[in-house]
Amino acid sequence: MTEPEEATSTQYSVSMLIRLTNKPGVLGRLTTAIGKAGGNIFAIENMVTRGPFLERAIVVNASSVDNQTEITKVVAALEDIELLNCYDRTMRLHEGGKIEVLPLAEVSDIDDLTMAYSPGVARVCTAIAEDEKLADDLTIRKNTVAIVSDGTAVLGLGDIGPKAAMPVMEGKALLFKEFGKVDAFPICLDTKDPDEIIETVVRLAPTFGGINLEDIAAPGAFYIEEQLKARLDIPVFHDDQHGTAVVTLAGLENALKVAGKKIEDISVVISGVGAAGVAIGKILIGAGVGRIIGVDSRGVIYDGRENLNDSKQWFAENTNPGDIQGSLSDAMAGVDVFIGVSAPDILTLDDISSMADDPIVFAMANPDPEISPELITNEVAVMATGRSDYPNQINNVLAFPGIFRGALDAKATDITENMKLAAAKAIAAEVTAEELSPTHIVPSVFDPAVSLNVAEAVAAAAIADGVTR
Amino acid sequence: MTEPEEATSTQYSVSMLIRLTNKPGVLGRLTTAIGKAGGNIFAIENMVTRGPFLERAIVVNASSVDNQTEITKVVAALEDIELLNCYDRTMRLHEGGKIEVLPLAEVSDIDDLTMAYSPGVARVCTAIAEDEKLADDLTIRKNTVAIVSDGTAVLGLGDIGPKAAMPVMEGKALLFKEFGKVDAFPICLDTKDPDEIIETVVRLAPTFGGINLEDIAAPGAFYIEEQLKARLDIPVFHDDQHGTAVVTLAGLENALKVAGKKIEDISVVISGVGAAGVAIGKILIGAGVGRIIGVDSRGVIYDGRENLNDSKQWFAENTNPGDIQGSLSDAMAGVDVFIGVSAPDILTLDDISSMADDPIVFAMANPDPEISPELITNEVAVMATGRSDYPNQINNVLAFPGIFRGALDAKATDITENMKLAAAKAIAAEVTAEELSPTHIVPSVFDPAVSLNVAEAVAAAAIADGVTR
Repeated sequence: MTEPEEATSTQYSVSMLIRLTNKPGVLGRLTTAIGKAGGNIFAIENMVTRGPFLERAIVVNASSVDNQTEITKVVAALEDIELLNCYDRTMRLHEGGKIEVLPLAEVSDIDDLTMAYSPGVARVCTAIAEDEKLADDLTIRKNTVAIVSDGTAVLGLGDIGPKAAMPVMEGKALLFKEFGKVDAFPICLDTKDPDEIIETVVRLAPTFGGINLEDIAAPGAFYIEEQLKARLDIPVFHDDQHGTAVVTLAGLENALKVAGKKIEDISVVISGVGAAGVAIGKILIGAGVGRIIGVDSRGVIYDGRENLNDSKQWFAENTNPGDIQGSLSDAMAGVDVFIGVSAPDILTLDDISSMADDPIVFAMANPDPEISPELITNEVAVMATGRSDYPNQINNVLAFPGIFRGALDAKATDITENMKLAAAKAIAAEVTAEELSPTHIVPSVFDPAVSLNVAEAVAAAAIADGVTR
Repeated sequence: MTEPEEATSTQYSVSMLIRLTNKPGVLGRLTTAIGKAGGNIFAIENMVTRGPFLERAIVVNASSVDNQTEITKVVAALEDIELLNCYDRTMRLHEGGKIEVLPLAEVSDIDDLTMAYSPGVARVCTAIAEDEKLADDLTIRKNTVAIVSDGTAVLGLGDIGPKAAMPVMEGKALLFKEFGKVDAFPICLDTKDPDEIIETVVRLAPTFGGINLEDIAAPGAFYIEEQLKARLDIPVFHDDQHGTAVVTLAGLENALKVAGKKIEDISVVISGVGAAGVAIGKILIGAGVGRIIGVDSRGVIYDGRENLNDSKQWFAENTNPGDIQGSLSDAMAGVDVFIGVSAPDILTLDDISSMADDPIVFAMANPDPEISPELITNEVAVMATGRSDYPNQINNVLAFPGIFRGALDAKATDITENMKLAAAKAIAAEVTAEELSPTHIVPSVFDPAVSLNVAEAVAAAAIADGVTR
């Protein structure tokens, strides 16, 4: 694996329409020059002969925006080659947004219009006005989720505001439909005030069958979710917390099989006690883990530490049974599992060496993990990250489409701890005993069975918990 | 034309799956019985032979829900006929809602995911964070409009609440896409407080490229629109006001050609001075009408009348030049045009007779006009209504898809009076001189050229007015 700054990626891919003089050696010079400039050829498309010339669209993965520019400059300067145009494929893909709103009913004549709109629609409106519950079947509430963000904690980018958050929420909507057949619509809010966010979502709720909170900074996110869960009769789910927690637990269950350990016997360090860290702590407690130690940038979380916010105080009271104190390194000694949702490169080889035998390391800081996988491949039983270019990606896409699919199917009023545990079990079960290995503890996100089985398990858990309308 | 209570309509259509004994005369008895019960056979579908039986889906238009029940009962009781199942087609059409949210980008492998979602999406987010204007091109803002309602004035149904309003807003979204290629999403709000509605829409604005206000009761609607226009840099349009006004003006321009009158010479009575009536008054003043008299349930509006709300006060100051007083009948004497957006059957034959020669009557109260068209067909030069089952339907669908299409294309920051006038002209121009007749003053809503031409005219007017981003 090359260093990150030199690695090429589709995210920096550039499409170049090139005219070549139709003679031997020219394509060779072109491809060689692209390689020398650091570009990795991804595809050569649409070859068309034009008299003495060839026109080709060449797609090249670069390592950065600067590298894209460099590659196109090098190509443009080559003899016998003309660069007709080029574009950044990622930017192009996002142009005009990534979702559209399409009719489910035809309106090609006056009869269609009469039933779908006026006057026929008045009958449907009247029916709902007389019995509000009918809105769950006769409107998009049946299948539609709002993806609500204030843009304060977007990916690793931080507080970039609601407009800049839109591409992520649209991407999420796309994944909801693709993997869960859930209609999802982004709602990016021009306020960071938790009470205003709560108030706004409560007002929006008649439109939606569920609320997915996304990329809202902690601790506001905890309060927002708690209040909305209490005030709304539709499921509310902060994916950064619970999606991550569900997939982490799924991965951990399989990692423990690889390492030959039992969940009730293990001790776990959670590095990063923000939105995701707290949710991971909760779900691990629910799954039976006895000894959890949380660590934030100021060290180990223990009951009595000063200036803990509400969620960290909860964490302090419900974890770290011996109330140990100290640094991350102090916490690591002898533990079975490290789960990182914190910052790059804060873990050392010595920390890993101090762990129990067959340690499990989930270093999920994005884009750069708490410790580079290359450094410890041979030191650990299982290694997972949040990245798609390493094995064992802990990816929320495995959870949220199926969880909402199941919640909508069951007309759930809530997403309970049991529903999350059921989702984790269903994800873990997708990896068969034959497939299970140190580099295969979670299923592929492209496996269509995952969200189907998650949905079924979640719907069953909702019914068992009695949280359905 | 039969009486409304006996007229069959697709809105009450029922689909029956029927098994008939396969022998002569049975289908005849069936269809006769349906007709006797008041049902109008709309279609016979999917004829399949099953040994000695035929199975057919028969679609029958009824005149009411009771009539639907009666027809199915009659059919079920017939000899040699079995009613296998039946359903209400309007209700069925609305099941699960009428719109869906679909991906515009594929995500079938890890490279797609890398560009559409993490990590590639971070590049798009960063670009927008650095230059907010890019959100107009790189997100759904480019093509997406919110259809915002509080459910207080839905169709003729009044204040039925946000959930019951959803089917109308979804229907509107469907029409936006079908006729204007605009992505529109319903937002039904659980508040009736104008300030809360304003605040909520301002918070939602980062997500949308335009706001269509819908079915919000006056006078709150005026205040909401005014405030939102001032606070947002995207177009805000209350369709109940301006959509109706635009199509009314379009129809009136053509009706005047039929009647051989000029817009600057005519006098107009507007019955109903709510949201639509005020907007019609404004657009007619902009189009050059000199003498307008507004009438509400208390009689003629004049400057000095007591207890006028703000918009009626505006109306009083800007219309009724002689400050006449009195009843609707008093106002009607000698006028050229009656425009009704008020209540059923408030106009008499005597009122019509008292008008100027070749009178024009737009009786647009829904579902029952201010005077029944049958009564006055021979008394007027042109008659229009809001209904699809009479000629000359003044239908907002002719306006709003094209208006927003044009506003989005021009990246308009506002919808100005000139843009509305341009839209009306474009709609009127769709009826050619050859087509123009007393029963053809507006184009068909299914004519795809309408919204294209409206869009072009509106975009040009936005540029001319300098209201583009």
